[in-house]
Amino acid sequence: MAQAQFTRETGSGGEFVRQPNRFTDRITADSGSAPGGGPDAQGRWPVEPGRYRLIWCRACPWAHRARIVLGLLGLDEVISVGTVDPIRDEAGWRFTLDDGGRDPVLGVEFLAEVYRATDPDYTGRVTVPALVDTVTGRVVTNDYPQITLDLSTQWRAYHRPGAPDLYPEALRPDLDTLIAEIFRDVNNGVYRCGFAVTQQAYDEAFTNLFARLDLLSQRLAGQRYLMGDAITEADVRLFTTLVRFDAAYHGHFKCNLRKLTEMPVLWAYARDLFQTPGFGDTVDFDHIKRHYYGTHPAINPTGIVPLGPDLTGWTAPHGRG
Amino acid sequence: MAQAQFTRETGSGGEFVRQPNRFTDRITADSGSAPGGGPDAQGRWPVEPGRYRLIWCRACPWAHRARIVLGLLGLDEVISVGTVDPIRDEAGWRFTLDDGGRDPVLGVEFLAEVYRATDPDYTGRVTVPALVDTVTGRVVTNDYPQITLDLSTQWRAYHRPGAPDLYPEALRPDLDTLIAEIFRDVNNGVYRCGFAVTQQAYDEAFTNLFARLDLLSQRLAGQRYLMGDAITEADVRLFTTLVRFDAAYHGHFKCNLRKLTEMPVLWAYARDLFQTPGFGDTVDFDHIKRHYYGTHPAINPTGIVPLGPDLTGWTAPHGRG
Repeated sequence: MAQAQFTRETGSGGEFVRQPNRFTDRITADSGSAPGGGPDAQGRWPVEPGRYRLIWCRACPWAHRARIVLGLLGLDEVISVGTVDPIRDEAGWRFTLDDGGRDPVLGVEFLAEVYRATDPDYTGRVTVPALVDTVTGRVVTNDYPQITLDLSTQWRAYHRPGAPDLYPEALRPDLDTLIAEIFRDVNNGVYRCGFAVTQQAYDEAFTNLFARLDLLSQRLAGQRYLMGDAITEADVRLFTTLVRFDAAYHGHFKCNLRKLTEMPVLWAYARDLFQTPGFGDTVDFDHIKRHYYGTHPAINPTGIVPLGPDLTGWTAPHGRG
Repeated sequence: MAQAQFTRETGSGGEFVRQPNRFTDRITADSGSAPGGGPDAQGRWPVEPGRYRLIWCRACPWAHRARIVLGLLGLDEVISVGTVDPIRDEAGWRFTLDDGGRDPVLGVEFLAEVYRATDPDYTGRVTVPALVDTVTGRVVTNDYPQITLDLSTQWRAYHRPGAPDLYPEALRPDLDTLIAEIFRDVNNGVYRCGFAVTQQAYDEAFTNLFARLDLLSQRLAGQRYLMGDAITEADVRLFTTLVRFDAAYHGHFKCNLRKLTEMPVLWAYARDLFQTPGFGDTVDFDHIKRHYYGTHPAINPTGIVPLGPDLTGWTAPHGRG
């Protein structure tokens, strides 16, 4: 799989170019939504409790976003969750964590089966998160940047009482800019470090990553969260990269100017979120380490998983708030 | 070369087994020394100023030992020094740092030429340090553990005034035990982490490495140097691994429980030595990083050299002594 990434997802300058998301239908609450592959006359997918299943991997930062938002909003009461094995081999994501090696709701062994049932011609990487319609067995969307925004905006009727507004309308212009910067330089930036096949492509990704982390540190030195005193989508997106930083990206992706533990503001900020319900309780460092070190033979041919780093500091007092 | 190491220097349990040193003649001061391949009637190599040339690589910890000891004892006045390129490719160690790509004294492009001139049947890895006789063009010894001890004990007549006694007779029983432990768990231990091809072999090497570093930290908490208040051979040997720890071993060899900078006693101890004449002035972090990340395609197939870590701390005050 990693070898395929190196050939199919590498640009002319040796830089990593992430594949586009194949399934971009949306589950929307208003009747003006764009037609998709869904079941109503316009092909729309309805907001409907008990209908959809979120497939995630505890190791994957893109899927982790969706799992955190689901929990923060209380939507895990109306959207079920299936979890794939952290090791993605030639056959792709597998349901080996479940009894009999099959997802108990979808009845499949491999997530690829659901992708093929949706598009028999699909040849890209099979990715998580995937939001699957349990009625038709089709992938509604693997469009991770939109999934969490739609959970915040389209599923309001099913949010738990007191759920945070992770995507507040008044903040969206700034928030959208911020999450775009975080995506480019941090969320995807670590992959651009790790999957670069030329020194120049790596150097550029590395420089942009740590420059952005410096800016984010400055921003967070004076306020608890990225947009002020309340958690937003931007915090979820930054957290899922920071929590993997020392365990995976620092060594495996060569993001090694500093460990997260050597960036005091970001380290305290990340611990603050980790210790917030809905964040740390969704983190599995064992899955994270086994996934990264076990899934990319092109950059870790032996598949050996490091015993470090010491991760006990995540529960230490953060001194923020 | 790395691929060859993985097949030829791997034990049945997936552990790295370093090849023995091929050339083990000694240059000795007393006439009772054992016969070797040297030029006198008994085949002994004489202690003779201006005759020998030490070939080293700035990146290599085994060669670095010899270079440090040479400088500390002032023997660089009587034994000349040749330096190979940090990148070892299929053709082995090269003299590309010299004008015309040839060692100016030996006249060769590759160190392998000297090895073959000494033993045409030699098929092992060509290693540094190598102490070469400039009269015959033969390798006298590549037996790195003995080379430094002989520089201390056999070349006394040419030590600079005030040279340290790095191998004091009274301390040898304890010192020999200590350097054997440091070799097994630390000097060679980091290679056993990095070149393990099974998880079990890696886990064992990693556990022994950090257990030993803990013991050495305890020992150094109460005294400036490993054997007390004076530098010995043991300090030289520990230093050459510690100085490479964060720049290479932590990431490349997965020695990542903690960085050296996260082990306060060892970090201060290493800085103390780094700032001692003869130590830091022989360190080349650029060569170290390019060598390790560029020479082992079996564990770093892309050959990309990390831009980190931040190494500026080496010159910070150490607070010891």
